[in-house]
Amino acid sequence: MIEVCLSPVLYPYFKNKDAIVVVVDILRATSSICTAFHNGVNKIIPVNTTEEAQNYKNKGYFVAAERDGVVIEFADIGNSPHYFSKDKVKDKTVVYTTTNGTNTIQLAKDSYQVLIGSFINITAISEWIAREKRDVLILCAGWKKKFNIEDTLFAGALVEKLITQNCYNIDCDSALASVDLWQTAKKNLNAYVSKINWRKRLDMQEVLDYCIQQDLTNQVPVFENGILISGNNT
Amino acid sequence: MIEVCLSPVLYPYFKNKDAIVVVVDILRATSSICTAFHNGVNKIIPVNTTEEAQNYKNKGYFVAAERDGVVIEFADIGNSPHYFSKDKVKDKTVVYTTTNGTNTIQLAKDSYQVLIGSFINITAISEWIAREKRDVLILCAGWKKKFNIEDTLFAGALVEKLITQNCYNIDCDSALASVDLWQTAKKNLNAYVSKINWRKRLDMQEVLDYCIQQDLTNQVPVFENGILISGNNT
Repeated sequence: MIEVCLSPVLYPYFKNKDAIVVVVDILRATSSICTAFHNGVNKIIPVNTTEEAQNYKNKGYFVAAERDGVVIEFADIGNSPHYFSKDKVKDKTVVYTTTNGTNTIQLAKDSYQVLIGSFINITAISEWIAREKRDVLILCAGWKKKFNIEDTLFAGALVEKLITQNCYNIDCDSALASVDLWQTAKKNLNAYVSKINWRKRLDMQEVLDYCIQQDLTNQVPVFENGILISGNNT
Repeated sequence: MIEVCLSPVLYPYFKNKDAIVVVVDILRATSSICTAFHNGVNKIIPVNTTEEAQNYKNKGYFVAAERDGVVIEFADIGNSPHYFSKDKVKDKTVVYTTTNGTNTIQLAKDSYQVLIGSFINITAISEWIAREKRDVLILCAGWKKKFNIEDTLFAGALVEKLITQNCYNIDCDSALASVDLWQTAKKNLNAYVSKINWRKRLDMQEVLDYCIQQDLTNQVPVFENGILISGNNT
């Protein structure tokens, strides 16, 4: 069974402790996390609040933190993928907090497995899932609890891949609608995403262009015991 | 401004006391309510629980009530539109409770105005809104708090009409996505809705065929002071 949860607020109605949960926040948390593992980060500690991030900073940790698109004063780097370059993150532990994504990762912690999905690792994620043969829940971080288009498009793209690879039973209106949106959008993805609300929220065309590219990495980050690690080594 | 709220659970993030809220539960509450006013019902009292409906029944009221597609034992009629025929409801007061729709109507009560929308009165609704020149929130009842396709398609169809008639500013990803889904679906609506989850929930092809027809009535039901009345007489 594949289901898609379009907002973290709806998660209680989809919760399934036996499922693999793929958390997605295309702009930008999950795209940045996949980039960080591609560039050799050792581990990432996602935290919900800027206060927690500040506490880690005081203990000497390297911190990535923004709120509403602005890098927080005490942070070492911001939330966009380009901050997570090899020279900044290789072999490091990074503490990370964002407006939407990091809270959503924490939310799913009681499920069978939590994976970090983005367009840049979409094939690696779909191959991982195909090997596991389990229920899948794609959990969209959205924007401040609301539905957003970019996370839904990723959900549609992943569901489409999983249907092709497996014999999944789709009995979820959100999954069906996500696939249809993706099929409309993928014909010209750059033009399609140019209309989404996020572009007005944060003026970052380059980030958007990066985050909708597919398969830049084969890394599958996994959330285990409160920490994000590379699933590729397990 | 037009916004679309895809589940009652998301309503707190869209709440706008100055907006006209169009509540939609295509299968079946809002389609049935529009049918009832078309057939001359005097007023409808929506109640949240079967206990409240039972109390009204004990006082001698005419009650329409189902849960999960099954007519409740004490009720006079069920929830589908065909129950609300002229011979059953003309000039009557009907007490009404459903799985999703009636709760959602109550939820919106503090907004400027609450209208009942369905495909069968979609043009009447859009003309009403065009006259008012206010913010509009389309509030989908969904299915047991989750997103559903049929309510989202109605939202997309109504947004498309309002864009054509007015100069609305759309800055809401849910509204944009709803329009795109509608544009995919409307080419062959019967085939499109044949895949939705609801068909498996309740086996009622005839009800579905009825509920996706446009403009069977010019009635616009309004929710005022806890009661649904015809807005056409005001």
